[in-house]
Amino acid sequence: MQYSNQQSTRQESATEQLLAPSPAAQPTSGPLTREELQLAARNHSMPLEALHREVTPPGLHYVLAHFDIPDLDASPWHLRIGGAVERALELSMAALRRDPAITIPVTLECAGNGRSLLEPRPPSQPWVLEAVGTAHWTGVPLAYLLGKAGVLPDAVEVVFTGADAGVQGGVPQQYARSLPIREALRPDVVLAYKMNGADLPPQHGYPLRLVVPAWYGMASVKWLESIEVVKGPFAGFQQAVAYRYQGSADDAGSPVSRIRVRSLMVPPGVPDFFTRERFLPAGPVMLEGRAWSGEGAVTAVEVGIDGTWLPAHLDKPLGGYAWRRWSLPWVASTGGHVLACRATDITGATQPLEQNWNYQGMGNNVVQRVSVSVE
Amino acid sequence: MQYSNQQSTRQESATEQLLAPSPAAQPTSGPLTREELQLAARNHSMPLEALHREVTPPGLHYVLAHFDIPDLDASPWHLRIGGAVERALELSMAALRRDPAITIPVTLECAGNGRSLLEPRPPSQPWVLEAVGTAHWTGVPLAYLLGKAGVLPDAVEVVFTGADAGVQGGVPQQYARSLPIREALRPDVVLAYKMNGADLPPQHGYPLRLVVPAWYGMASVKWLESIEVVKGPFAGFQQAVAYRYQGSADDAGSPVSRIRVRSLMVPPGVPDFFTRERFLPAGPVMLEGRAWSGEGAVTAVEVGIDGTWLPAHLDKPLGGYAWRRWSLPWVASTGGHVLACRATDITGATQPLEQNWNYQGMGNNVVQRVSVSVE
Repeated sequence: MQYSNQQSTRQESATEQLLAPSPAAQPTSGPLTREELQLAARNHSMPLEALHREVTPPGLHYVLAHFDIPDLDASPWHLRIGGAVERALELSMAALRRDPAITIPVTLECAGNGRSLLEPRPPSQPWVLEAVGTAHWTGVPLAYLLGKAGVLPDAVEVVFTGADAGVQGGVPQQYARSLPIREALRPDVVLAYKMNGADLPPQHGYPLRLVVPAWYGMASVKWLESIEVVKGPFAGFQQAVAYRYQGSADDAGSPVSRIRVRSLMVPPGVPDFFTRERFLPAGPVMLEGRAWSGEGAVTAVEVGIDGTWLPAHLDKPLGGYAWRRWSLPWVASTGGHVLACRATDITGATQPLEQNWNYQGMGNNVVQRVSVSVE
Repeated sequence: MQYSNQQSTRQESATEQLLAPSPAAQPTSGPLTREELQLAARNHSMPLEALHREVTPPGLHYVLAHFDIPDLDASPWHLRIGGAVERALELSMAALRRDPAITIPVTLECAGNGRSLLEPRPPSQPWVLEAVGTAHWTGVPLAYLLGKAGVLPDAVEVVFTGADAGVQGGVPQQYARSLPIREALRPDVVLAYKMNGADLPPQHGYPLRLVVPAWYGMASVKWLESIEVVKGPFAGFQQAVAYRYQGSADDAGSPVSRIRVRSLMVPPGVPDFFTRERFLPAGPVMLEGRAWSGEGAVTAVEVGIDGTWLPAHLDKPLGGYAWRRWSLPWVASTGGHVLACRATDITGATQPLEQNWNYQGMGNNVVQRVSVSVE
């Protein structure tokens, strides 16, 4: 069953009576709700031990889908490119696969990562720390297809629409986001049909998705159905209402775009099943993790051991848009310890030690802290 | 990094001082806790729309790992078979791949599925409804390898130990479960190295796992390291303490084994992002889902529409241990409706309409209810 445009259109009349658009309910200091648990059950985190891996396999890579994951057939699938172009195009998957392809390793992170740690907590997908992953994405450069279509001089944005449909903030919609023309023409923005060398898994956008390196995941529209070049700013829900840095409900705010610098650590030792508290024996242990930024290269990672910060060793990054491994040998002494990691990027931006709160819980990159018991 | 036996052994001294074994904290009517959210973030549900698919791809299939997912290398990997056998064996993955292989479609479900819906709620992995999936598993029949090793006449159980290690209920452990000899010798119990025709993904037990068709998932030990034939009942934590039907903390209870009859429905229409409430237009819609039982064939599925039960059409099952598609055309009329589905198996067992509570929240197979708004 596919959620077609037709269904989406019929849907609009069904929900006209709903409230004015809002990103979500009010932030709360109350307990987790059933609605948040339902979202946590659907949307998958990358277990932190997968930070051992330079490339994240499907099933470990994070997944967020606003609506249902479409079940699409690649054979009849066509991508439409239209709007402010010289030649509208309609391309089959077979045609797209004949176009020149590139493969790029990209770290994608959800803009809402870390949201459940915020106080008060914006009610939405309640990520803890792990909404991240790195994969090799293969497909046709978007710039190549935009070149084929011919972008008109007065075009300002490119709108990408996925096949996934539903209601958010009272607004019936297919998931859609735009990019400014200058971002859309970057040579590394790709219409991907392969992840790590295999066809896209359903949850990652089969048969075709956008991948926008350096931007938070909301820009990388999955189940891509159409591309429309437009002459004015796109005002769709996911652009104008959701994914904004707002101080309050009344604040128009500013759009979320590039990934803020962040690092994560593989929690050392072994876990307690329920509490996820970590246990490890006294003695030498290699602390390690990965660091990334959408603003430019990661230039330093410091590891905090009970409040003392030490510089970590940095490996070469997998690519310009992928995370970098960091490591630091530590001799664990008996007792309880709190470990942390903090990355800095080439712009000088560094991770905050305390939460940088905003109304929708976006771009949270506070340092991770890991408590360990050493015996 | 591998969580080796050595590490696990060193771990024991680290946690000797912990409390006596207990499956988890007391059941609660309180709000969801941070510990439960952490587990929900790690352990992945199958989104209900994946019920459209007869076979569940990795990344949509449910995943539960008690401890960290090991990062194992298949080249040095060896499976040890020992204990009450005529000939202890140590087999490389290459050797196992030369043995005769079978492929079986199997529906696996977590024994704790539905736990978060229980009142009071046992604190553990807080599944909603979707801890299920169906895959084709390929590997060597366990009976073949037990035949090679030669089971001694006084053997009573076979113990399977995975490489995943941690602490649960105060007990340091590698994950381990046993099967009675008669179950271990069933021709359909398989040591699988492929899922849906590809190497096992890390989270499904790479490089080797047990698959025990008809039993809840806890029996299908992942990251399988050793098989030991024993002359007495295995008293490991996951056998003697966890995975039991208990009335209270003091009740020894009875072991969880076969999957109780269950059905699920693809929620029709499209969702609201936050509430997951469903919206659909008035008119004809095909209600559909899947039904399964570990006790024998599913013989009937009834669909409840606002409290009236109607028989669904049943497709042929994918196999003797896999789910069966059911469907029922419905003409949706304007307004709110509550849909439900209820399966019955060949033993006459049917899903309860109200929760069948037990202390650990095991084997919950209450009927699913889906609220829809039709306009």
